[in-house]
Amino acid sequence: MTFSLTVLGSNSALPAKDRFATAHVLNVRERYFLIDCGEGVQMQLKRFGNVKYSKLDNLFISHLHGDHVFGLFGLLSSLALMGRTADFNIYAHKNMGEILDSHLKYFGENMSYKIVLHAIDPDAPKIIYEDYCMTVKTIPLKHRIPACGFLFKEKTAPLNIYKEAIKKYGLSVADITSIKSGNAHTTAAGEVIPNEKLTYRPYKPRSYAFCSDTMYCEEIAEHVAGVNLLYHEATFLENLKQMAHRTGHSTSVDAAKIAKLAQAKRLLLGHFSSRYSSNMLYLFKEEAKTVFPNTEIAIDGQNYDIF
Amino acid sequence: MTFSLTVLGSNSALPAKDRFATAHVLNVRERYFLIDCGEGVQMQLKRFGNVKYSKLDNLFISHLHGDHVFGLFGLLSSLALMGRTADFNIYAHKNMGEILDSHLKYFGENMSYKIVLHAIDPDAPKIIYEDYCMTVKTIPLKHRIPACGFLFKEKTAPLNIYKEAIKKYGLSVADITSIKSGNAHTTAAGEVIPNEKLTYRPYKPRSYAFCSDTMYCEEIAEHVAGVNLLYHEATFLENLKQMAHRTGHSTSVDAAKIAKLAQAKRLLLGHFSSRYSSNMLYLFKEEAKTVFPNTEIAIDGQNYDIF
Repeated sequence: MTFSLTVLGSNSALPAKDRFATAHVLNVRERYFLIDCGEGVQMQLKRFGNVKYSKLDNLFISHLHGDHVFGLFGLLSSLALMGRTADFNIYAHKNMGEILDSHLKYFGENMSYKIVLHAIDPDAPKIIYEDYCMTVKTIPLKHRIPACGFLFKEKTAPLNIYKEAIKKYGLSVADITSIKSGNAHTTAAGEVIPNEKLTYRPYKPRSYAFCSDTMYCEEIAEHVAGVNLLYHEATFLENLKQMAHRTGHSTSVDAAKIAKLAQAKRLLLGHFSSRYSSNMLYLFKEEAKTVFPNTEIAIDGQNYDIF
Repeated sequence: MTFSLTVLGSNSALPAKDRFATAHVLNVRERYFLIDCGEGVQMQLKRFGNVKYSKLDNLFISHLHGDHVFGLFGLLSSLALMGRTADFNIYAHKNMGEILDSHLKYFGENMSYKIVLHAIDPDAPKIIYEDYCMTVKTIPLKHRIPACGFLFKEKTAPLNIYKEAIKKYGLSVADITSIKSGNAHTTAAGEVIPNEKLTYRPYKPRSYAFCSDTMYCEEIAEHVAGVNLLYHEATFLENLKQMAHRTGHSTSVDAAKIAKLAQAKRLLLGHFSSRYSSNMLYLFKEEAKTVFPNTEIAIDGQNYDIF
């Protein structure tokens, strides 16, 4: 069952030659969750995403800075041109409502579907999305304007029964239902078989945390404790620490410290300043690795399996 | 003296894998005129344009469909991030005013420069821009919403005097001024030397016409008569003529007919529907060439010298 991330844009605001502004797409069992929507997101989806648009129903926007938003307008238009009829859900700061209204006034003539805005309070950690297999929870961030990250987390897998146990104990449908809900089994002879000898969970729940844009903020670590993959912005290298602080951003080492505090499994760095050419990005990794060894670099178009 | 076009986007609305939405940049003697502003224009400028942003002062927008506009927001933000202070001129339908107001309300916090909107009436052919060496005139087009093209035209070059003539006739500064304004010269001996024997024009004025989006409309030919390079949209191949008509677009042959009627020197086709992959675009050229042989295909990133 797929749980993987494709980075569509790894850059910060000013355009770099080979890096687009922030946008991620998370594939959870062939359903696609779009996270932030930098300019050009629809071209990047076309190039790299391998996404069925019909399975793209939910967009999460961290904050209303242009480099996380400006791809939205083209995407919404294209969905209409493709004849979409299903609702499209946008989870964003409430001001997105007025932005959408203005947009649709001039560019919404052929809208074939409904946009459902779910206004979120970026300051309150809260589950804002839930379905049969996963939840999405906001992570308060510390930026120049209200901003939050998102924690995508699979639910604990339901119990499965070992096939051999069914045979061995001649389990009935009622037995199976009871065992699957966590009970032990008592045989006809009165022997009690503990549940853990009869069942297993088919997978470990996986999780992905998206944290951008933010300055260094230790509270983030609590919200993403133990996460499988932590994407944390690292706009600057360590020697521009003061600039990072002044502009509400993080450095490579800031991100690594959060990953370490959170005991994350892996760290993915992105939102690089345009001042760094792509062949300089290894420096981010090198700096972060001094604090948190399992660090990777976000690259446009690259896929990251989450496990 | 440069007069050349770079195509930044050759596609119509829906994104194609390797083609961006409409945007052109015309280099007139190292000043850059942006024409339409499809999503991703700033990334394409970075990749292909070789443009000094400080020399990019004027943007002409043909009509307010998203695939000709959505790159504007990112561009405006980036100009501010780069600390621009000079005015930025936008020539567009008057509704652009409200679109800009809404945009700046949420994304204009760091605007360091003034946007000057020049509202144009797309139905009236009129000179909307003029400087020492060129003019830009609107070309009424026929689309689903108000739309106009733009004719960029160099002014007739001023008269230069042959160096040999200055020597031969011992011309004074006053003589030279008079001859440069078109007069004949009378020598001390009373001989009248006609102006054309004394002067030449250092270059032929060049012209570029941008016509997109439009359905087939013969009046366009009058407005672009004799143009050096005519860019005319060709969204569809000839077998989708009816669809072209229904959606307010042109076919390859429609565009070629306008070029022929106008006695243009060259024709450049673009605004291709996403249904055509890039290796099918030669078909547009083949069809158009049956009517107008000197036809080329717009390709993202390609430069077209105009002569």
